[in-house]
Amino acid sequence: MKRVPFEEMHGQMRQVLLKYGFSAERANLSARLFAEASRDGVYSHGLNRFPRFIEFIQNGYVKVNNSPLRTAQMGAIEQWDGQQGPGNLNAHFCMARAIELAQTKGMGLVALRDTNHWMRGGSYGWQAADAGMMAICFTNTTPNLPPWGAKEAVLGNNPLIIAVPRSGGHVVLDTAMTQFSFGKLESYRRAGKMLPVEGGFDEKGNLTRDPAQIEKTNRALPFGFWKGSGLSLMLDLMASMLAGGKSTIQISRQDRPDEYNLSQFFMAINPNSIGEPRHYEQVLTDTITAMHRAARADEKQAILYPGERVIKTRVENMKLGVPVDEEYWTKVLSL
Amino acid sequence: MKRVPFEEMHGQMRQVLLKYGFSAERANLSARLFAEASRDGVYSHGLNRFPRFIEFIQNGYVKVNNSPLRTAQMGAIEQWDGQQGPGNLNAHFCMARAIELAQTKGMGLVALRDTNHWMRGGSYGWQAADAGMMAICFTNTTPNLPPWGAKEAVLGNNPLIIAVPRSGGHVVLDTAMTQFSFGKLESYRRAGKMLPVEGGFDEKGNLTRDPAQIEKTNRALPFGFWKGSGLSLMLDLMASMLAGGKSTIQISRQDRPDEYNLSQFFMAINPNSIGEPRHYEQVLTDTITAMHRAARADEKQAILYPGERVIKTRVENMKLGVPVDEEYWTKVLSL
Repeated sequence: MKRVPFEEMHGQMRQVLLKYGFSAERANLSARLFAEASRDGVYSHGLNRFPRFIEFIQNGYVKVNNSPLRTAQMGAIEQWDGQQGPGNLNAHFCMARAIELAQTKGMGLVALRDTNHWMRGGSYGWQAADAGMMAICFTNTTPNLPPWGAKEAVLGNNPLIIAVPRSGGHVVLDTAMTQFSFGKLESYRRAGKMLPVEGGFDEKGNLTRDPAQIEKTNRALPFGFWKGSGLSLMLDLMASMLAGGKSTIQISRQDRPDEYNLSQFFMAINPNSIGEPRHYEQVLTDTITAMHRAARADEKQAILYPGERVIKTRVENMKLGVPVDEEYWTKVLSL
Repeated sequence: MKRVPFEEMHGQMRQVLLKYGFSAERANLSARLFAEASRDGVYSHGLNRFPRFIEFIQNGYVKVNNSPLRTAQMGAIEQWDGQQGPGNLNAHFCMARAIELAQTKGMGLVALRDTNHWMRGGSYGWQAADAGMMAICFTNTTPNLPPWGAKEAVLGNNPLIIAVPRSGGHVVLDTAMTQFSFGKLESYRRAGKMLPVEGGFDEKGNLTRDPAQIEKTNRALPFGFWKGSGLSLMLDLMASMLAGGKSTIQISRQDRPDEYNLSQFFMAINPNSIGEPRHYEQVLTDTITAMHRAARADEKQAILYPGERVIKTRVENMKLGVPVDEEYWTKVLSL
């Protein structure tokens, strides 16, 4: 497996973005967010996604130097228009704004419309936690998930991120609405493996563990069946209603299968506004310790909190270099 | 099946609460919340739960006339101490306060500690939606859910409620962290039925559809396996850290198996603070219509949005009377 030092990966993508007209500061931040996704083990939304991001610039979906504009505000809540700017820069900007609001108002909510794919959703949870904030954020997508009981995609596989800051390593949940992301299905198929649990439907409409069957029908399973389906709807409605933007079904048009004009939700909550650091630490320590010490279902399988594996991967990849798929790396070098 | 008119059910429980020392207004509201749970089809947390609530008063866990006291605030966020007051009154009070905050600050968050079981969580979502607010609320519980990979309960089956107001009937998700609540398992077992999908573990540690096996091991399945497990942890941490209260694992003590000293989270978001009613309606109409019109997986099974069945049940029960389990009804009449 080829590994590339983090700084080299970051620098390479930064160079490409400069070539495409990003200002120096914006090229640096956007490339860093891509490189950090790979560094943290989210390869599907790091380097591997970068060539497609460049295509979206080329075909005009992503306007490289557009930034969000505020369109409404009241107290701790604001609405911004993303103006089709780069998804990761728009998202980073809005989370930073939510954090700023939370510093004086206890919490802040920024709803963003007309933006692009934010790449790795977890980025904005880690961003908030690094600033000492709790966070809840989510985005909608193009229709790619049938509601429970349907064969037809009406809802989106909207990622949901919840973050809690912790001195020993943040607790960050970063989950899509399907049991397995499309990236995961692909990895299992390429490895010739069946999924550990059912992940979608085959052509007869039966649940299956075969990733190839699910890719064929494009009917992934919402996690928790009807529960993930309901959750997906709620996130879509909240993001699009508050942003003054499009809901998943409104994003879809036959003449534009590509994903843009998304609606997103960024909330930061300042625990220091009402709480005591010593109490937080006690809650975190007691809870995480109890999880780690709990009797295991399988002695060989550790019990992990969300985000725990990320830190391990990050440390390893910073030391040894970030693993790359040679095909994608060569592609990025040629951009 | 015996049915009791809503007003009679409400009046009966109100009388009991007056007998136990509730003030007139508090008896009326608490009894109404119980009766409305049954009216809306959530029988497990309506009338059927009322006798146990009275026991909790008798043994001193619930202090009938204690109300929440504010312990900290900043901008749109507040922390309150529930003082062991009745769980449904405390929760209703805190959601009302979050709504009040959202009216002038765009949104409001109230974190509540040292409270009791809130009964039907959905109540507070419907309360917010009736006031034109979106809502996110959740509570922790005693340890009753093993984290993914564990055999031992460390996390709670924390209900999560998300509500979006809608003129044609609110959209309200009210979900526990398990695939099936303990109440649902009991119903399936009593009806001699297997679950439609796997709902927990048997004594050999295998997934099963047999409700009796799951009740025996007390190992219900988090919805979406590792995903529901992660979500349960995040909700527990946020509620307890912000409330200055206990997390699930801290609630548990060998000498007190009963559930009290809970931590809860009530958030109201005012869509009118930054948005346009016409836009909301369009989002809601387009999305709900697309769901209803989507090609069905099973022609006989309608595709429903969260809360849709509640309205249907409510209308029917107001017309025909609220169905009661005669055993519980007789018990309540005797209190």
